[in-house]
Amino acid sequence: MGKRILGIDPGLAFTGYGVIMVEGFRYHHISHGVIKTQAKNGIGLRLMQIQEEIQKLIETYIPVEAGIESLYFYKNSKSAIPVAQASGVILLTLARAGIPFGTYTPLELKQAVVGHGKAEKRQVQEMLKILFNMKTVPEPDHAADALAAAICQASFSAVRERLGFHELRNV
Amino acid sequence: MGKRILGIDPGLAFTGYGVIMVEGFRYHHISHGVIKTQAKNGIGLRLMQIQEEIQKLIETYIPVEAGIESLYFYKNSKSAIPVAQASGVILLTLARAGIPFGTYTPLELKQAVVGHGKAEKRQVQEMLKILFNMKTVPEPDHAADALAAAICQASFSAVRERLGFHELRNV
Repeated sequence: MGKRILGIDPGLAFTGYGVIMVEGFRYHHISHGVIKTQAKNGIGLRLMQIQEEIQKLIETYIPVEAGIESLYFYKNSKSAIPVAQASGVILLTLARAGIPFGTYTPLELKQAVVGHGKAEKRQVQEMLKILFNMKTVPEPDHAADALAAAICQASFSAVRERLGFHELRNV
Repeated sequence: MGKRILGIDPGLAFTGYGVIMVEGFRYHHISHGVIKTQAKNGIGLRLMQIQEEIQKLIETYIPVEAGIESLYFYKNSKSAIPVAQASGVILLTLARAGIPFGTYTPLELKQAVVGHGKAEKRQVQEMLKILFNMKTVPEPDHAADALAAAICQASFSAVRERLGFHELRNV
Protein backbone atom coordinates (compact mmCIF):
# COMPACT_ATOMS: atom_id res chain seq x y z
CA MET A 1 0.00 0.00 0.00
CA GLY A 2 1.54 3.27 -1.15
CA LYS A 3 1.09 6.69 0.36
CA ARG A 4 -1.55 9.08 -0.82
CA ILE A 5 -0.76 12.64 -1.76
CA LEU A 6 -3.30 15.42 -2.26
CA GLY A 7 -2.56 18.11 -4.85
CA ILE A 8 -4.46 21.41 -4.88
CA ASP A 9 -4.67 24.33 -7.32
CA PRO A 10 -6.40 26.99 -5.20
CA GLY A 11 -8.96 29.49 -6.45
CA LEU A 12 -12.04 31.23 -5.09
CA ALA A 13 -14.31 30.24 -8.01
CA PHE A 14 -12.50 27.01 -8.97
CA THR A 15 -10.18 24.97 -6.75
CA GLY A 16 -8.69 21.99 -8.55
CA TYR A 17 -7.80 18.86 -6.60
CA GLY A 18 -6.00 15.64 -7.46
CA VAL A 19 -5.20 12.57 -5.39
CA ILE A 20 -2.37 10.21 -6.32
CA MET A 21 -0.82 7.14 -4.70
CA VAL A 22 2.92 6.70 -4.69
CA GLU A 23 4.52 3.24 -4.54
CA GLY A 24 8.28 3.43 -4.84
CA PHE A 25 8.87 5.19 -8.16
CA ARG A 26 5.37 4.55 -9.47
CA TYR A 27 2.50 7.03 -9.40
CA HIS A 28 -1.13 5.93 -9.53
CA HIS A 29 -4.09 8.17 -10.23
CA ILE A 30 -6.79 8.01 -7.58
CA SER A 31 -9.09 10.94 -8.21
CA HIS A 32 -9.32 14.48 -9.55
CA GLY A 33 -11.93 17.20 -9.80
CA VAL A 34 -12.86 20.79 -9.09
CA ILE A 35 -14.54 22.54 -6.15
CA LYS A 36 -16.78 25.27 -7.56
CA THR A 37 -18.22 28.18 -5.60
CA GLN A 38 -20.76 30.73 -6.76
CA ALA A 39 -20.09 34.48 -6.67
CA LYS A 40 -23.65 35.22 -5.53
CA ASN A 41 -22.92 33.49 -2.19
CA GLY A 42 -20.46 36.17 -1.03
CA ILE A 43 -16.86 35.53 -0.03
CA GLY A 44 -17.59 34.33 3.54
CA LEU A 45 -19.80 31.44 2.42
CA ARG A 46 -17.51 30.63 -0.50
CA LEU A 47 -14.48 30.28 1.79
CA MET A 48 -16.53 28.12 4.19
CA GLN A 49 -17.53 25.86 1.29
CA ILE A 50 -13.90 25.51 0.15
CA GLN A 51 -12.83 24.58 3.69
CA GLU A 52 -15.61 22.00 4.05
CA GLU A 53 -14.89 20.35 0.70
CA ILE A 54 -11.12 20.19 1.36
CA GLN A 55 -11.92 18.67 4.76
CA LYS A 56 -14.13 16.08 3.04
CA LEU A 57 -11.29 15.18 0.61
CA ILE A 58 -8.92 14.73 3.56
CA GLU A 59 -11.40 12.42 5.32
CA THR A 60 -12.13 10.44 2.13
CA TYR A 61 -8.59 9.92 0.84
CA ILE A 62 -6.50 10.28 4.04
CA PRO A 63 -3.48 11.87 2.33
CA VAL A 64 -0.20 11.90 4.27
CA GLU A 65 1.15 14.97 2.46
CA ALA A 66 -0.09 17.70 0.16
CA GLY A 67 1.33 19.81 -2.68
CA ILE A 68 -0.18 23.22 -3.36
CA GLU A 69 0.21 25.43 -6.40
CA SER A 70 1.20 28.85 -5.13
CA LEU A 71 1.68 32.24 -6.66
CA TYR A 72 4.56 34.36 -5.53
CA PHE A 73 4.17 36.84 -8.29
CA TYR A 74 1.27 37.54 -10.54
CA LYS A 75 0.94 39.90 -13.47
CA ASN A 76 -2.63 40.78 -12.63
CA SER A 77 -2.57 41.32 -8.88
CA LYS A 78 -6.31 42.07 -8.80
CA SER A 79 -7.11 38.47 -9.74
CA ALA A 80 -4.31 37.14 -7.48
CA ILE A 81 -6.08 38.34 -4.33
CA PRO A 82 -9.11 35.97 -4.34
CA VAL A 83 -6.77 33.11 -5.31
CA ALA A 84 -4.52 33.92 -2.32
CA GLN A 85 -7.54 34.22 0.01
CA ALA A 86 -8.67 30.73 -1.02
CA SER A 87 -5.11 29.39 -0.61
CA GLY A 88 -4.94 30.84 2.93
CA VAL A 89 -8.06 28.89 3.88
CA ILE A 90 -6.72 25.71 2.24
CA LEU A 91 -3.33 25.93 3.99
CA LEU A 92 -5.14 26.54 7.30
CA THR A 93 -7.31 23.44 6.73
CA LEU A 94 -4.27 21.27 5.97
CA ALA A 95 -2.39 22.62 9.00
CA ARG A 96 -5.40 21.93 11.27
CA ALA A 97 -5.55 18.36 9.90
CA GLY A 98 -1.82 17.95 10.64
CA ILE A 99 -0.97 17.30 6.98
CA PRO A 100 2.50 18.56 5.96
CA PHE A 101 2.48 20.43 2.67
CA GLY A 102 4.84 21.99 0.17
CA THR A 103 3.99 24.93 -2.10
CA TYR A 104 5.10 25.04 -5.74
CA THR A 105 5.05 27.70 -8.42
CA PRO A 106 3.44 27.03 -11.83
CA LEU A 107 7.00 26.85 -13.25
CA GLU A 108 7.98 24.13 -10.77
CA LEU A 109 4.81 22.14 -11.60
CA LYS A 110 5.64 22.12 -15.30
CA GLN A 111 9.26 21.21 -14.61
CA ALA A 112 8.23 18.28 -12.40
CA VAL A 113 5.82 16.84 -14.99
CA VAL A 114 7.21 17.77 -18.42
CA GLY A 115 10.85 18.43 -17.54
CA HIS A 116 10.94 22.14 -18.41
CA GLY A 117 9.04 25.20 -17.22
CA LYS A 118 7.91 26.48 -20.63
CA ALA A 119 5.53 23.61 -21.37
CA GLU A 120 2.02 24.36 -22.63
CA LYS A 121 -0.95 23.37 -20.50
CA ARG A 122 -1.85 20.74 -23.11
CA GLN A 123 1.62 19.16 -22.83
CA VAL A 124 1.24 18.89 -19.06
CA GLN A 125 -2.13 17.18 -19.49
CA GLU A 126 -0.77 14.75 -22.14
CA MET A 127 2.15 13.89 -19.85
CA LEU A 128 -0.20 13.24 -16.92
CA LYS A 129 -2.32 10.97 -19.15
CA ILE A 130 0.74 8.87 -20.04
CA LEU A 131 2.14 8.89 -16.49
CA PHE A 132 -1.12 7.66 -14.97
CA ASN A 133 -2.03 5.40 -17.91
CA MET A 134 -5.35 7.22 -18.35
CA LYS A 135 -7.68 6.89 -21.35
CA THR A 136 -8.20 10.63 -21.72
CA VAL A 137 -6.29 13.69 -20.49
CA PRO A 138 -7.26 14.87 -16.98
CA GLU A 139 -9.57 17.89 -17.19
CA PRO A 140 -10.29 20.68 -16.49
CA ASP A 141 -6.99 22.62 -16.27
CA HIS A 142 -7.37 23.27 -12.53
CA ALA A 143 -7.64 19.53 -11.80
CA ALA A 144 -4.65 18.76 -14.06
CA ASP A 145 -2.60 21.42 -12.26
CA ALA A 146 -3.61 19.86 -8.94
CA LEU A 147 -2.37 16.43 -10.10
CA ALA A 148 0.90 18.10 -11.14
CA ALA A 149 1.16 19.67 -7.65
CA ALA A 150 0.73 16.21 -6.10
CA ILE A 151 3.53 14.88 -8.34
CA CYS A 152 5.74 17.84 -7.29
CA GLN A 153 5.14 16.97 -3.66
CA ALA A 154 5.87 13.28 -4.30
CA SER A 155 9.19 14.10 -6.03
CA PHE A 156 10.18 16.54 -3.35
CA SER A 157 9.22 14.05 -0.67
CA ALA A 158 11.29 11.28 -2.33
CA VAL A 159 14.36 13.54 -2.54
CA ARG A 160 13.89 14.53 1.07
CA GLU A 161 13.71 10.92 2.23
CA ARG A 162 16.82 9.97 0.24
CA LEU A 163 18.81 12.88 1.55
CA GLY A 164 17.54 12.46 5.06
CA PHE A 165 15.77 15.82 5.32
CA HIS A 166 12.94 15.75 7.77
CA GLU A 167 11.59 19.21 7.34
CA LEU A 168 9.06 20.04 4.70
CA ARG A 169 9.35 23.19 2.70
CA ASN A 170 6.45 25.11 4.16
CA VAL A 171 6.51 28.69 2.91
CA MET B 1 -25.60 49.89 25.45
CA GLY B 2 -24.28 50.48 21.93
CA LYS B 3 -23.21 47.90 19.42
CA ARG B 4 -19.65 46.71 19.12
CA ILE B 5 -17.82 46.65 15.83
CA LEU B 6 -14.56 44.87 15.15
CA GLY B 7 -12.13 46.39 12.65
CA ILE B 8 -9.28 44.37 11.14
CA ASP B 9 -6.25 45.22 9.01
CA PRO B 10 -5.10 41.77 7.84
CA GLY B 11 -1.50 40.67 7.43
CA LEU B 12 0.49 37.46 7.83
CA ALA B 13 3.17 39.01 10.09
CA PHE B 14 1.00 41.77 11.63
CA THR B 15 -2.79 41.82 11.79
CA GLY B 16 -4.14 45.00 13.35
CA TYR B 17 -7.42 44.95 15.25
CA GLY B 18 -9.62 47.61 16.78
CA VAL B 19 -12.90 47.39 18.68
CA ILE B 20 -15.29 50.33 18.89
CA MET B 21 -18.75 50.83 20.37
CA VAL B 22 -21.35 52.84 18.48
CA GLU B 23 -24.14 54.68 20.27
CA GLY B 24 -26.24 56.73 17.89
CA PHE B 25 -23.75 59.06 16.22
CA ARG B 26 -21.07 58.60 18.88
CA TYR B 27 -18.10 56.28 18.61
CA HIS B 28 -16.29 54.96 21.68
CA HIS B 29 -12.90 53.30 21.67
CA ILE B 30 -12.87 49.89 23.36
CA SER B 31 -9.58 48.26 22.41
CA HIS B 32 -6.89 48.03 19.75
CA GLY B 33 -3.72 46.03 19.16
CA VAL B 34 -1.79 43.78 16.83
CA ILE B 35 -1.61 40.00 16.33
CA LYS B 36 2.00 39.10 15.54
CA THR B 37 3.18 35.84 13.99
CA GLN B 38 6.73 34.64 13.50
CA ALA B 39 8.11 33.64 10.10
CA LYS B 40 10.04 30.72 11.62
CA ASN B 41 6.72 28.98 12.46
CA GLY B 42 5.81 28.39 8.79
CA ILE B 43 2.63 29.57 7.12
CA GLY B 44 0.36 26.76 8.40
CA LEU B 45 0.98 27.55 12.08
CA ARG B 46 0.88 31.30 11.45
CA LEU B 47 -2.56 31.08 9.83
CA MET B 48 -3.77 28.86 12.71
CA GLN B 49 -2.53 31.46 15.22
CA ILE B 50 -4.32 34.29 13.37
CA GLN B 51 -7.55 32.29 13.33
CA GLU B 52 -7.30 31.50 17.05
CA GLU B 53 -6.58 35.09 18.05
CA ILE B 54 -9.42 36.49 15.91
CA GLN B 55 -11.71 33.87 17.48
CA LYS B 56 -10.58 35.03 20.94
CA LEU B 57 -11.35 38.68 20.05
CA ILE B 58 -14.83 37.65 18.88
CA GLU B 59 -15.47 35.79 22.15
CA THR B 60 -14.09 38.65 24.28
CA TYR B 61 -15.82 41.60 22.61
CA ILE B 62 -18.86 39.96 20.98
CA PRO B 63 -18.95 42.30 17.96
CA VAL B 64 -22.17 42.37 15.89
CA GLU B 65 -20.40 43.45 12.70
CA ALA B 66 -16.88 43.75 11.33
CA GLY B 67 -15.03 46.01 8.89
CA ILE B 68 -11.98 44.65 7.08
CA GLU B 69 -9.32 46.54 5.18
CA SER B 70 -8.99 44.85 1.82
CA LEU B 71 -6.70 45.17 -1.13
CA TYR B 72 -8.13 44.93 -4.59
CA PHE B 73 -5.01 46.11 -6.27
CA TYR B 74 -1.48 46.27 -5.01
CA LYS B 75 1.63 47.68 -6.61
CA ASN B 76 3.82 44.95 -5.17
CA SER B 77 1.85 41.79 -5.81
CA LYS B 78 4.50 39.62 -4.14
CA SER B 79 3.75 41.17 -0.74
CA ALA B 80 -0.01 41.22 -1.45
CA ILE B 81 -0.18 37.41 -1.46
CA PRO B 82 0.54 36.71 2.25
CA VAL B 83 -1.77 39.63 3.18
CA ALA B 84 -4.55 38.09 1.09
CA GLN B 85 -3.90 34.61 2.58
CA ALA B 86 -4.33 36.05 6.09
CA SER B 87 -7.45 37.94 5.01
CA GLY B 88 -8.96 34.71 3.62
CA VAL B 89 -8.53 33.05 7.03
CA ILE B 90 -9.98 36.10 8.83
CA LEU B 91 -13.06 36.30 6.56
CA LEU B 92 -13.58 32.55 7.04
CA THR B 93 -13.41 32.97 10.84
CA LEU B 94 -15.95 35.83 10.78
CA ALA B 95 -18.28 33.87 8.48
CA ARG B 96 -18.08 30.80 10.75
CA ALA B 97 -18.95 33.02 13.75
CA GLY B 98 -21.94 34.41 11.82
CA ILE B 99 -20.60 37.99 11.94
CA PRO B 100 -21.56 40.09 8.89
CA PHE B 101 -18.65 42.08 7.50
CA GLY B 102 -17.85 44.73 4.94
CA THR B 103 -14.52 45.14 3.18
CA TYR B 104 -13.00 48.55 2.53
CA THR B 105 -10.02 49.77 0.52
CA PRO B 106 -7.29 51.94 2.14
CA LEU B 107 -8.77 54.89 0.19
CA GLU B 108 -12.23 54.31 1.70
CA LEU B 109 -10.73 54.07 5.22
CA LYS B 110 -9.04 57.45 4.85
CA GLN B 111 -12.18 59.01 3.39
CA ALA B 112 -14.31 57.73 6.27
CA VAL B 113 -11.96 59.07 8.95
CA VAL B 114 -10.31 62.20 7.49
CA GLY B 115 -12.79 63.08 4.75
CA HIS B 116 -10.50 62.55 1.77
CA GLY B 117 -8.49 59.64 0.41
CA LYS B 118 -5.13 61.37 0.18
CA ALA B 119 -4.59 61.74 3.94
CA GLU B 120 -1.26 60.76 5.48
CA LYS B 121 -1.15 57.92 7.99
CA ARG B 122 -0.37 60.45 10.73
CA GLN B 123 -3.50 62.49 9.90
CA VAL B 124 -5.64 59.37 10.20
CA GLN B 125 -4.11 58.63 13.62
CA GLU B 126 -4.59 62.24 14.83
CA MET B 127 -8.21 62.16 13.69
CA LEU B 128 -8.82 58.87 15.51
CA LYS B 129 -7.29 60.37 18.67
CA ILE B 130 -9.72 63.31 18.54
CA LEU B 131 -12.71 61.17 17.57
CA PHE B 132 -12.18 58.75 20.46
CA ASN B 133 -10.96 61.41 22.90
CA MET B 134 -7.70 59.51 23.44
CA LYS B 135 -4.62 60.85 25.21
CA THR B 136 -2.20 59.61 22.54
CA VAL B 137 -2.63 58.55 18.92
CA PRO B 138 -3.52 54.86 18.45
CA GLU B 139 -0.46 52.86 17.45
CA PRO B 140 0.96 51.01 15.61
CA ASP B 141 -0.29 51.81 12.07
CA HIS B 142 -1.95 48.42 11.66
CA ALA B 143 -4.07 48.95 14.78
CA ALA B 144 -4.99 52.51 13.68
CA ASP B 145 -6.05 51.20 10.26
CA ALA B 146 -8.15 48.56 12.01
CA LEU B 147 -9.95 51.25 14.06
CA ALA B 148 -10.55 53.14 10.79
CA ALA B 149 -12.02 49.96 9.27
CA ALA B 150 -14.39 49.67 12.24
CA ILE B 151 -15.49 53.29 11.69
CA CYS B 152 -16.03 52.56 7.98
CA GLN B 153 -18.24 49.64 8.90
CA ALA B 154 -20.15 51.76 11.45
CA SER B 155 -20.81 54.52 8.85
CA PHE B 156 -21.82 52.02 6.23
CA SER B 157 -24.05 50.25 8.68
CA ALA B 158 -25.73 53.54 9.73
CA VAL B 159 -26.41 54.45 6.08
CA ARG B 160 -27.78 50.99 5.48
CA GLU B 161 -30.17 51.19 8.39
CA ARG B 162 -31.39 54.63 7.34
CA LEU B 163 -31.97 53.58 3.77
CA GLY B 164 -33.46 50.28 4.76
CA PHE B 165 -30.83 48.07 3.12
CA HIS B 166 -30.57 44.74 4.78
CA GLU B 167 -27.73 43.23 2.87
CA LEU B 168 -24.15 43.83 3.84
CA ARG B 169 -21.57 44.54 1.22
CA ASN B 170 -19.70 41.27 1.34
CA VAL B 171 -17.30 41.12 -1.54
